[in-house]
Amino acid sequence: MREKVCVREVGPRDGIQMVNTILPTEQKVAWCRAAVAAGVCNIEVTSFVPPKVVPQFVDAEDVARRAIEIDGLRASALVPNLKGAERAFALGVPLVNYVLSASEAHNLANVRRSTDESMADFARIAEARDALEGPRIALGAGIATSFGCTISGAVSEDRVVQLAEQYAQAGADEIIVADTVGYADPAQVRRLMARVVSAVGKLPVLCHFHDTRGLGLANVVAALEAGVRAFDASLAGLGGCPFAPGATGNINTEDTVYMLEQMGFDTGIDVAALLALRAEVESWLPGERFSGAIARAGLPKTYSARLDTAA
Amino acid sequence: MREKVCVREVGPRDGIQMVNTILPTEQKVAWCRAAVAAGVCNIEVTSFVPPKVVPQFVDAEDVARRAIEIDGLRASALVPNLKGAERAFALGVPLVNYVLSASEAHNLANVRRSTDESMADFARIAEARDALEGPRIALGAGIATSFGCTISGAVSEDRVVQLAEQYAQAGADEIIVADTVGYADPAQVRRLMARVVSAVGKLPVLCHFHDTRGLGLANVVAALEAGVRAFDASLAGLGGCPFAPGATGNINTEDTVYMLEQMGFDTGIDVAALLALRAEVESWLPGERFSGAIARAGLPKTYSARLDTAA
Repeated sequence: MREKVCVREVGPRDGIQMVNTILPTEQKVAWCRAAVAAGVCNIEVTSFVPPKVVPQFVDAEDVARRAIEIDGLRASALVPNLKGAERAFALGVPLVNYVLSASEAHNLANVRRSTDESMADFARIAEARDALEGPRIALGAGIATSFGCTISGAVSEDRVVQLAEQYAQAGADEIIVADTVGYADPAQVRRLMARVVSAVGKLPVLCHFHDTRGLGLANVVAALEAGVRAFDASLAGLGGCPFAPGATGNINTEDTVYMLEQMGFDTGIDVAALLALRAEVESWLPGERFSGAIARAGLPKTYSARLDTAA
Repeated sequence: MREKVCVREVGPRDGIQMVNTILPTEQKVAWCRAAVAAGVCNIEVTSFVPPKVVPQFVDAEDVARRAIEIDGLRASALVPNLKGAERAFALGVPLVNYVLSASEAHNLANVRRSTDESMADFARIAEARDALEGPRIALGAGIATSFGCTISGAVSEDRVVQLAEQYAQAGADEIIVADTVGYADPAQVRRLMARVVSAVGKLPVLCHFHDTRGLGLANVVAALEAGVRAFDASLAGLGGCPFAPGATGNINTEDTVYMLEQMGFDTGIDVAALLALRAEVESWLPGERFSGAIARAGLPKTYSARLDTAA
């Protein structure tokens, strides 16, 4: 029995947030369907930001409604505030993700309020969730710039742990620790994630790494050691960094799955099927950077035989 | 006091073995000088293969002779056999690296003899070294395809450990465990490197990873955990893989140094100086693939402040 690790696809949200092409709803849903057919059980399918802010997500309701109906998929959606959360709640999105920033300066720049004010907003979202009837909706609670900030530099590890605890007390069902700007290194990841995992007790903890400086998969290895068993990733590494023009985005789904499977973990995901999906999505997004090593080099001869390699 | 990790530059050897441009001796020496000025103390400066086999190394004697004279540099050179070793010994190259393959099929394809015959060749090289007068020359002993082989697939971990032990008994001063074809994964690296480090006792063990499938730095993290404190790397990730056309080569020196320093290790190497050298080498090698994340994204704001980041 191999140990399970969850790889959540965030391509349809983080991956396409900054691309030049507005994907038709039909393609977004087709992407989700094909990913599920490849074994992906968790997808962040859209963002309930105001359409004026990110035109890519003008069809958030349509995408979410159709994604929820896909068999075998636990769809999630990002919400920036209570208003966004109410839109997601109205549709019954099973997992609603919120995010604030551990860096005060980054939080101020992003949403013009302090991190504490953003935490108070989360508490209001959790109250609204608790008041809902019907099946319980889970809340994912994200901490951006957990490993450093392009504005203020270093971020206090104590502060990240404190925010995770506050989230847990306020009603979060999952904690998402994000390296929004690609500053994390494996020693820091191992240290901080061990503290977060320990602080929030039984709540699942997920890491959201960007590969901006090439350490994405090294950071996954460090997080695994700290007990993390869930990761966000984006097909083809889509999702550039606004703070590092030309840099790569989220860690690459195909490469992450390849590494985890080769290490002996069970992701339930078929890399070859992901590569076929990648080729299709690439045809939809002309001019975007599609990164990834497995797409270039192919799977090794030992891949299917991995269970036999320990001598 | 930060713990030291050695990053050995192999760009002037592995990195340029397959490029289209034959670099003039002057540029090879200038590369070594600039790397040393950036803090690189160990460079594999050339290969004593027959010039007919690899025209790039027709000037091996000249490069080695001039590299040995560079203050602060421990120059090493690769040799394929006793004849090559004798050329390196004659010049007094302080570290002479030999390599055989853990995969029989790979060894046969490369040098038309069995791995055991290649080990016997190493023993003869060690005897020749022991018979030399003058300052002792060290022997680096490489095990290629330690993590799998493009011809035969999985490679026995017991066999790799056995070869490391045989090398140690025959007189090796360092063991180099190489992922020649980019098959290694972090779980395998941690497991096998812990065994090798334990098997060869006090001998230094170095890892030589290729980033063919994007796991190069993740494998460095795993090797660090197993006690490895020395790594080969190539400026700009030069050195493609003949078995995976279009794929990246050795792990990237700049990115490796960045990661290690950010993790709190002391490499003694200045990343900014490496980036300047990279730009110069790039102008010498038109049309070659220069990869690497730090060259694209830049150093993070927390880089120089890394000692203050632990909250």
